[in-house]
Amino acid sequence: MSMYFYPPSVEELISYLNKLPGVGPKTAQRLALHLLNTREADAVGLARAITATREKVRRCAVCGNLTDDEVCPVCSDEQRDASVICVVEHPGDCIAMERTGQFNGLYHVLHGALSPMEGIGPAELNMDSLMQRLRGGNIREVVMATNTGVEGEATALYLARLIKPLGIRVSRLAYGVAVGGDLEYTDEVTLGRALAGRSDI
Amino acid sequence: MSMYFYPPSVEELISYLNKLPGVGPKTAQRLALHLLNTREADAVGLARAITATREKVRRCAVCGNLTDDEVCPVCSDEQRDASVICVVEHPGDCIAMERTGQFNGLYHVLHGALSPMEGIGPAELNMDSLMQRLRGGNIREVVMATNTGVEGEATALYLARLIKPLGIRVSRLAYGVAVGGDLEYTDEVTLGRALAGRSDI
Repeated sequence: MSMYFYPPSVEELISYLNKLPGVGPKTAQRLALHLLNTREADAVGLARAITATREKVRRCAVCGNLTDDEVCPVCSDEQRDASVICVVEHPGDCIAMERTGQFNGLYHVLHGALSPMEGIGPAELNMDSLMQRLRGGNIREVVMATNTGVEGEATALYLARLIKPLGIRVSRLAYGVAVGGDLEYTDEVTLGRALAGRSDI
Repeated sequence: MSMYFYPPSVEELISYLNKLPGVGPKTAQRLALHLLNTREADAVGLARAITATREKVRRCAVCGNLTDDEVCPVCSDEQRDASVICVVEHPGDCIAMERTGQFNGLYHVLHGALSPMEGIGPAELNMDSLMQRLRGGNIREVVMATNTGVEGEATALYLARLIKPLGIRVSRLAYGVAVGGDLEYTDEVTLGRALAGRSDI
């Protein structure tokens, strides 16, 4: 008895969807059937957007952030304070910083963090161009906003050691309890850092 | 102060991904960045597969299941028992039936279930062609394998009432405890049906 499966074209679509992060075989199947049944404009639009984005988007020549232009809107915005650079791991981190509405400097996107385990050293990250920017311009402060895990910390320390000799202030985001967060559910390391960094009221 | 977001092309990709079922804004963002950074072959392959599948795949002229051909491999397989038809809601249900390795008849895919709330009546489902098949051929049994929710039940009963007058046996999959399932975690309705349908050992 021959068993029936999805038509070859659908199986192919499922296998591509299955390669996406967090998409298992069941979800891939559901997404494939959705893409088959949804409006033509939505399915073809998605296909076109994938191709178009890859063709259009590149890294900003200055900060390395994603942009459709040669230089990104932040780097070419003369209203922003060009003497402060916030170093982040990923493009999404810039968006998070922008959402605070409290940072008016420029960014530098490393596109990752140091990870000897995964073979990611300084050469694999967008670090050379950061050092060039710092040597070339009138930068007075670099804010390290890498993630707070082991790799992000190591990256921040590594860069701080390179940058300080240039006479530039290097700062790090404050550690502490999340606003609106319960002390009870805050891990002890974070709580310890929050205590050490306490301020007068 | 102007806020920075993703480049327009990336925002567009995110908004298309966000339309997929179960994909929220955060996941859409993560998938978009993945599609930007992954191997060219995987990203472009997905884009092509979406378009190709929509162009190639159609409904089988006989059973309504998805196929790349005029008639699907099951309907055109002469080894299968053409006197039994299993009625299911979705193409994925055929795959589930095939996996049992215990069904050698043909299928009929309704592409949904009756749902007055969502405005889905008999005309919106692939029912007319089922009745045509039953009137035309030597069918001795129709196995109702619609889902076991309210809509699937209603659909099975509705069809049973239409089919029985043709002198064709209409059966329904057995309800009961899942194999390997704990009684403790079986809902009372299912357990009640399992009791009512008990057999001698």
